Amino acid sequence: MRKLSAGALASGLGFRAQAQEAASEPLTVEPWTLTPGAPLLSPPYGMPSSFESNVIRRSARAAAMPGSGSSMTPLADLFGSITPNGLVYERHHAGVPKIDPAQHRLVIHGLVRQPRLFTIDDLLRFPSESRVYFLECSGNTGSEWNGPSGLPVQLTHGLLSCCEWTGVRLSTLLDEVGVDTSAQWILAEGADGAAMTRSLPLARILDRALVVYAQNGERLRPENGYPIRLIVPGFEGNTNIKWLRRIKLVQAPEMTREETSKYTNLLRDGKARQFVFEMDAKSVITRPSAGHRLTTHGYYAISGYAWSGRGRIRRVDVSTDGGTTWHPARLNGAAQDRALTRFEADWHWNGSVANLQSRAVDETGYIQPTRAALVAARGVNSQYHYNGIQNWRVEATGEVRNA
Amino acid sequence: MRKLSAGALASGLGFRAQAQEAASEPLTVEPWTLTPGAPLLSPPYGMPSSFESNVIRRSARAAAMPGSGSSMTPLADLFGSITPNGLVYERHHAGVPKIDPAQHRLVIHGLVRQPRLFTIDDLLRFPSESRVYFLECSGNTGSEWNGPSGLPVQLTHGLLSCCEWTGVRLSTLLDEVGVDTSAQWILAEGADGAAMTRSLPLARILDRALVVYAQNGERLRPENGYPIRLIVPGFEGNTNIKWLRRIKLVQAPEMTREETSKYTNLLRDGKARQFVFEMDAKSVITRPSAGHRLTTHGYYAISGYAWSGRGRIRRVDVSTDGGTTWHPARLNGAAQDRALTRFEADWHWNGSVANLQSRAVDETGYIQPTRAALVAARGVNSQYHYNGIQNWRVEATGEVRNA
Repeated sequence: MRKLSAGALASGLGFRAQAQEAASEPLTVEPWTLTPGAPLLSPPYGMPSSFESNVIRRSARAAAMPGSGSSMTPLADLFGSITPNGLVYERHHAGVPKIDPAQHRLVIHGLVRQPRLFTIDDLLRFPSESRVYFLECSGNTGSEWNGPSGLPVQLTHGLLSCCEWTGVRLSTLLDEVGVDTSAQWILAEGADGAAMTRSLPLARILDRALVVYAQNGERLRPENGYPIRLIVPGFEGNTNIKWLRRIKLVQAPEMTREETSKYTNLLRDGKARQFVFEMDAKSVITRPSAGHRLTTHGYYAISGYAWSGRGRIRRVDVSTDGGTTWHPARLNGAAQDRALTRFEADWHWNGSVANLQSRAVDETGYIQPTRAALVAARGVNSQYHYNGIQNWRVEATGEVRNA
Repeated sequence: MRKLSAGALASGLGFRAQAQEAASEPLTVEPWTLTPGAPLLSPPYGMPSSFESNVIRRSARAAAMPGSGSSMTPLADLFGSITPNGLVYERHHAGVPKIDPAQHRLVIHGLVRQPRLFTIDDLLRFPSESRVYFLECSGNTGSEWNGPSGLPVQLTHGLLSCCEWTGVRLSTLLDEVGVDTSAQWILAEGADGAAMTRSLPLARILDRALVVYAQNGERLRPENGYPIRLIVPGFEGNTNIKWLRRIKLVQAPEMTREETSKYTNLLRDGKARQFVFEMDAKSVITRPSAGHRLTTHGYYAISGYAWSGRGRIRRVDVSTDGGTTWHPARLNGAAQDRALTRFEADWHWNGSVANLQSRAVDETGYIQPTRAALVAARGVNSQYHYNGIQNWRVEATGEVRNA
């Protein structure tokens, strides 16, 4: 028998699919093979199968006001690295504005030679750039600061998505207006009812920030910033201002609400970290995860995501004994800069209790910390930037719990 | 004034956005900034903006029967490399079957040690692989064999899409059943009413063929093969059997309808090319393209796609004078193996008639031919595998035509 591929998965797995003697019984011909199916263009803009109707965004709690809160990506039901557009997470403060792209303007002003108003058509005429980047809310996984919340991965880690973003480089637009040497920061503002603003240090973002108008090949979704948003690869989600309307070149940070009252990290000693921009290296196993039930013993491909706001993932380690022993996982393809990287690890479940964890290491050498190490460094009140190792406990029954 | 980025686009472009003196007149505050917007989860599975309602799939002609025909991707309205799932092209022979994934089975039989039935859950448990690949119908652009059809790019080139596909390697599944050394080909069959079948040479596909269950991160769309399909990177679309139900290991091609009556290329001398698997290197400018109207003179970023079924795109050349002179275009990022590569070229339109063309060169050195060269080699009746250079004519009025 010819061995067809390297890596003798079949012989080592203990995995057995259903066997059926092909000679003894004809293959069932299902009803859908016996009748014509649905016509073309039904509908013209396609939708998922009705059998996938549970794969949707969900909120952890009811919003205080209808537009204020978040909805999470169903990470456990996704594959590869890309998040399909209909499932990209939401985080809003005043709901989703319905913006007429013909009326929308982007103004760039402040410490510039020539302030400019750009229409969307203007922006579409510039040379474009497309890159795959993750987007993560700095509040993601905040549920786990005080220990396992019991929640499933959609609600613990679902403020996380990854798209191919297309837009014009911020540096290209700043060339148009001419930036004064005294300008060290920008203020970016959104056009929603909350008019979110963040100050950003120019030197740290200029080489890669984009004014984006497309995600995964099509124009931005309304809830993700249509018609334009800022993308600052690797930085906290809130800096990636949606419904971008204004960029002001300034000397120093403007100290807006969103970088003083909010999005600062309160430490044990009463001081707060401010302008914590980069999302630290992080990973999470999405399959199996809390809420799943393993029904058979044998082989499973433990699967999840790893990512870092500082660059590429160098390595992901996986443990099945709660962090006592670690083994490197496989990374799918070449790890991409500041994008979600899919990892997988082989596991044979023999029915004992297991505690599944993953640990990311990025190209700077930074290692994802345990929750205990994170709390020791920052206390439990910093709210944002929780990137501790996540544990999923597999019971002897096969039930998987966030515990 | 500090120059912020290399490549003095701003000074050389002749491009002028609307100027507004920021000090003299306050920025307009639009109504959507003054009111709360739509709530979260409206809807839970997101949809495009209503302002993008023209960005849909379209058919070139009415289908002979409701399920038999194709619908094309709106290439001129897309960005980057990825095709969003709702716009991936369709090509069906008996409509879209509604397949219950819990009932669906994949059988692998024939010259094997142990024939197997796999459930979808079985397939999801194997190690997975995710790769970005283009998919192209071999009949794509067949409208142009006899000269410019006058049709827009959606209808000339729209049987073309590109997704991140996730699935299990075909070789992994063949390891499970054990393939006899006498098996040189596979027969793949679909579960739709047409039960499409194609024979494929095992040695040529084994290193990269996938049994796929996800596109761009979520489960396959019904019209793209839910719950599973074959992906044979770089090969004609019809070999990427949708709604995959059966793989049979055989000694020689089975000579099915889809590789004899159809999908063969009739040459001038009455002979036909058969088993022409790889899609040849090809490119097309999508912006500007037929149906567009340029309203101002000045700078435009000519933009389009290049791809090759034999590997990576090495270079794309662009001409604005109908192929008399050529200049290399910029490629976005590193060209990926057998995926759509976005290219752009700077162009200053001074109002004269222009004839815009692109020409792809792949890593094998193959150069995309002119229509004349293609016809000289194959005549006009080979129907499939048309990859000639496409011309878009810009009139002095700014109207762009397929002429």
